[in-house]
Amino acid sequence: MDIAETIRGRRSIRKYQKKDVPDFVIEELLDLARHAPSSMNGQPWYFIVVRRDETKRRLAEIKNRYCPVEKRAYRADFIQDASAIIVVSVDKSRSYERGIENGVLAAASILLTAHERGLGSVYMSAYKADEPAVSEEIRKLLGIPEHIDPISIIPLGYPGEIPKAKKLQPLQGMVSHETFGR
Amino acid sequence: MDIAETIRGRRSIRKYQKKDVPDFVIEELLDLARHAPSSMNGQPWYFIVVRRDETKRRLAEIKNRYCPVEKRAYRADFIQDASAIIVVSVDKSRSYERGIENGVLAAASILLTAHERGLGSVYMSAYKADEPAVSEEIRKLLGIPEHIDPISIIPLGYPGEIPKAKKLQPLQGMVSHETFGR
Repeated sequence: MDIAETIRGRRSIRKYQKKDVPDFVIEELLDLARHAPSSMNGQPWYFIVVRRDETKRRLAEIKNRYCPVEKRAYRADFIQDASAIIVVSVDKSRSYERGIENGVLAAASILLTAHERGLGSVYMSAYKADEPAVSEEIRKLLGIPEHIDPISIIPLGYPGEIPKAKKLQPLQGMVSHETFGR
Repeated sequence: MDIAETIRGRRSIRKYQKKDVPDFVIEELLDLARHAPSSMNGQPWYFIVVRRDETKRRLAEIKNRYCPVEKRAYRADFIQDASAIIVVSVDKSRSYERGIENGVLAAASILLTAHERGLGSVYMSAYKADEPAVSEEIRKLLGIPEHIDPISIIPLGYPGEIPKAKKLQPLQGMVSHETFGR
């Protein structure tokens, strides 16, 4: 699968088969993730691989509790059925004010590689800018030190659904030349 | 090139050949970028393609002026030699508080596809959380409306350098199981 196929074929998958994703596959995803660009080449990433049901349940519970009203259709319960959940975190002291970017760039590689390897995943956030309690609770649950920020939550599993075709906005309306809207 | 090769081979390129990147190649990158995941499938992206020397010069000038002291080794002058600069922006009203994530996920696709197509690029930010003047000046320069946030600046060109091998931190120190540090 080339990059165009991988990008076009990737979808957000929220239903998983009861089938374990082997450790070596996850290790390969993370091995690639650390090739992402990072501010000042700080490589500030920490990846926590969650397999335990109780921890998955509590992660889902935190996500649900702080879910904004408009996103209630996307409850996080499904992450309990993932074979593993990767929590992508970054060391603030090596992120140069770009912790979110550094985390998301690594997460993007995980999402794409997962799809190319036949796995399903979906991008989820591990913090809320206006609600520090979210990252605080995730830190506490996973024993993450204060100087490290959890950024993304990536559940991984063999897909248990084939989502309907996504309706994409036409490219034309998104692209301008030289100045906005031209 | 498969996804693993693409991810491993991609590097931040800050020197470009004097050779134009054709419009259709850029269009292909942006066509793929809009397949990125976005919060609530809001697809909030706007891509502004900058080709004019004067606009490139002013973008570099803004980046340099607000460059933090510790990043002075990375001056932005080089973006003036890029064949094109993509400014990735997002409509706040369709970003559900995840404008940065939405923008960076699309930018990640651009970086990877660019590398796979033989182009060089580098991730740069189009805002500073603690300095709203940065996005304000970029908005003004490119005529971007108030409700749209510029997130990333991606210069594109045929590589004029082969960067030295990047020293990667070992994966072992980045991965924990169940709780941080285990």
